[in-house]
Amino acid sequence: MSTQNITITDVIPRDIRFPTSRDLSGSDAMNPDPDYSMVYVTLKTDDPNLCGYGMTFTIGRGNELCTAAVHSLKHFVLGKKLSDFTTDMRGFWRMITGDGQLRWVGPEKGVIHLATASIVNAVWDLYARVEGKPLWKLLADMSPDQLVSCIDFRYMTDFLTPDEAREILTKKSATRQEREARLLKTGYPAYVTSVGWLGYSDDKVRELSKEALAQGWTWFKMKVGANVQDDIRRAKIIREVIGWDNKLMMDANQVWDVPQAIDWMRQLASLKPWWIEEPTSPDDVLGHAAIAKAIAPIKVATGEQCQNRIIFKQFLQAKGLQILQADGCRLGGVNEALAVILMAAKAGIPVCPHTGGVGLSEFQRHFSFFDYIAVSGDIDSHALEYVSHLHEHFLDPVVMQKGHYMPSQKPGCSIEMYPKSVTEYEFPNGPQWKK
Amino acid sequence: MSTQNITITDVIPRDIRFPTSRDLSGSDAMNPDPDYSMVYVTLKTDDPNLCGYGMTFTIGRGNELCTAAVHSLKHFVLGKKLSDFTTDMRGFWRMITGDGQLRWVGPEKGVIHLATASIVNAVWDLYARVEGKPLWKLLADMSPDQLVSCIDFRYMTDFLTPDEAREILTKKSATRQEREARLLKTGYPAYVTSVGWLGYSDDKVRELSKEALAQGWTWFKMKVGANVQDDIRRAKIIREVIGWDNKLMMDANQVWDVPQAIDWMRQLASLKPWWIEEPTSPDDVLGHAAIAKAIAPIKVATGEQCQNRIIFKQFLQAKGLQILQADGCRLGGVNEALAVILMAAKAGIPVCPHTGGVGLSEFQRHFSFFDYIAVSGDIDSHALEYVSHLHEHFLDPVVMQKGHYMPSQKPGCSIEMYPKSVTEYEFPNGPQWKK
Repeated sequence: MSTQNITITDVIPRDIRFPTSRDLSGSDAMNPDPDYSMVYVTLKTDDPNLCGYGMTFTIGRGNELCTAAVHSLKHFVLGKKLSDFTTDMRGFWRMITGDGQLRWVGPEKGVIHLATASIVNAVWDLYARVEGKPLWKLLADMSPDQLVSCIDFRYMTDFLTPDEAREILTKKSATRQEREARLLKTGYPAYVTSVGWLGYSDDKVRELSKEALAQGWTWFKMKVGANVQDDIRRAKIIREVIGWDNKLMMDANQVWDVPQAIDWMRQLASLKPWWIEEPTSPDDVLGHAAIAKAIAPIKVATGEQCQNRIIFKQFLQAKGLQILQADGCRLGGVNEALAVILMAAKAGIPVCPHTGGVGLSEFQRHFSFFDYIAVSGDIDSHALEYVSHLHEHFLDPVVMQKGHYMPSQKPGCSIEMYPKSVTEYEFPNGPQWKK
Repeated sequence: MSTQNITITDVIPRDIRFPTSRDLSGSDAMNPDPDYSMVYVTLKTDDPNLCGYGMTFTIGRGNELCTAAVHSLKHFVLGKKLSDFTTDMRGFWRMITGDGQLRWVGPEKGVIHLATASIVNAVWDLYARVEGKPLWKLLADMSPDQLVSCIDFRYMTDFLTPDEAREILTKKSATRQEREARLLKTGYPAYVTSVGWLGYSDDKVRELSKEALAQGWTWFKMKVGANVQDDIRRAKIIREVIGWDNKLMMDANQVWDVPQAIDWMRQLASLKPWWIEEPTSPDDVLGHAAIAKAIAPIKVATGEQCQNRIIFKQFLQAKGLQILQADGCRLGGVNEALAVILMAAKAGIPVCPHTGGVGLSEFQRHFSFFDYIAVSGDIDSHALEYVSHLHEHFLDPVVMQKGHYMPSQKPGCSIEMYPKSVTEYEFPNGPQWKK
């Protein structure tokens, strides 16, 4: 009996928002008042015990547009068999991104691509459940040929061909098991962002840094970009606490123009930042390359708002980033995330997926686990962001151990939420929003 | 009495679609069945005789998302005075593109940016009506300082600073009147696309080419990219008719990867194409640069799907295009189109705005007229696409004379439609869609 013979009978997107702007956690120079939000997609099937769950992430207003876009796309999966997709994942992805009319409002970017991700991820969740594996394990058990067959190489072949992708995967095939064993034992390294939000006082920054250090964290991220003197002072406070062997990263959330980014980071260089994240517009590949060249050895990190594989390809070609922060909800779901992970491997650039938000830690850790086991084979130059809130709404929440993400063992993509949370936070009619 | 003291009392977006896919005019390799569509925005005011009209363009499905996005953005203009915006056009644009939550679903791209354009253009239409001038004349009468004050230079200053922009404008200030006089007399050169749609037979291509030549056209564009032998044969037919002194352009509508584009265009090189349009993904700046380098002296043209000034900046920095086809409905309206026109002037690259579609010829010609009078000062290396359909729905339709666009003299942006057309083609409930 092939359980992939199930049929998708309904596609239900829900606009879920958490009122995080009320306490301003997560605020930065560019995003002063985010309400962490998601389009939460449920695929119902003809098996009453089996649903698929997918998501994309936004920060509040605009989530209604992504929800509407799921309705514009849902006919691509409604009434189809899961096996229609799993036997040709590349074709599935080409179909859902290639509608002759819809692609005009992208192509492959913004609202329509965020919505695409939520549906694509729900299909993968269903697939992983049917196979009885967490997503990372489903992927890590696929052969190089199977993985390559999930990727649409359109617009990629001047940087990475299917043959080159297969070769990268094959090189690491024989040793997958060792790395899986290590992962299951000691987990995947994480870093902490909560010490240096822009709104915090110096005393609070000092206290939080001490706490995090005591908890065993070794990578610390702070927000910068509003005032350079403030940034220097706060960085000094963190360095006083964490010393010089631990890593300090900085995040500017796109506030600078290129010359300003270079100037600002030169003033912060003596604090030895490991990376500067989002120094300027996520669309500006050449701007990032100019910044990276000017401020080396400080690394440039970006990706949470990079729209698709074509932008990432150019970032790698132009050496515009040294840390690649892919987001499988901003990219068109699992298939395109695989494409980006493989391109990064070719360039020797570590992928540290974007996880700050709701549901992103739960979901994106799967990519890091897979990348370590089957693609890059490296864990030492990687760390996955950890933010401590909103995990309680998920059935398969992140589990941390000594500053490490421990692998999930439940089948699926870890996106499924408690029905009570869905009801409670649905916008605009859930009880939390009726208040 | 300042008539700018009017207040915007309502913002009404309408989803207007023309069923152009029924006869397949406008079909190409990537867009097999476009229904030329627009979000048509009406700004009502407290003066019952004064409305502003704006638009963005799409090709059918997905237009509902841009319409919804206007609702998500409309609070930025509702209840405001026109003078709130006209006294600080840069601030207006920064506000409407800078919402801390909404920018996540862009930023400045796709659905949200298309919707932004429709509102921004409606505000400019209102402004031009109040000033009693067509848009091109409103812009051409502004001082360099006024024009610079309309532009948000964020993410542009590594390529073009406000001072440099002012200098470009000042250089051409003294001679504006001569060029305006010439424009009013002989118009602005156009080119014709209707001779070489992919679906046409060889005989039809030959006949249409003969007709167009007899009508006085000198620039001809054909579609390519489905089959190279077909493309060679059809190009030869057109060359036989139009000879070698007239210009032949080719348009691939994004179908190729980079190596394929280079290979294909080398096979077509003996037909001496003037430019190849959209050889690959509109996001691939470096890919276009590689193609341009490999196939010179054939020029590369792109822009109708380029999302914002940041992408165009990089195209100019990397020499990825030699013809810039800006679209003031894909960019965030008039303000960002000005930014791109000025960057192109700095690079010495001709701007030939995208006009194939509905309403685009009416609107975008204003940018070409303004560019000629006040920015580039050049007309010989420019031509504006002309497509012959759907003009009858507009109150101020294009007027052609001997293959030239003649300047509109009516106040506004020429976007206003006949109420009957709006009612007739509104989707999904207009009579044309109820059929």
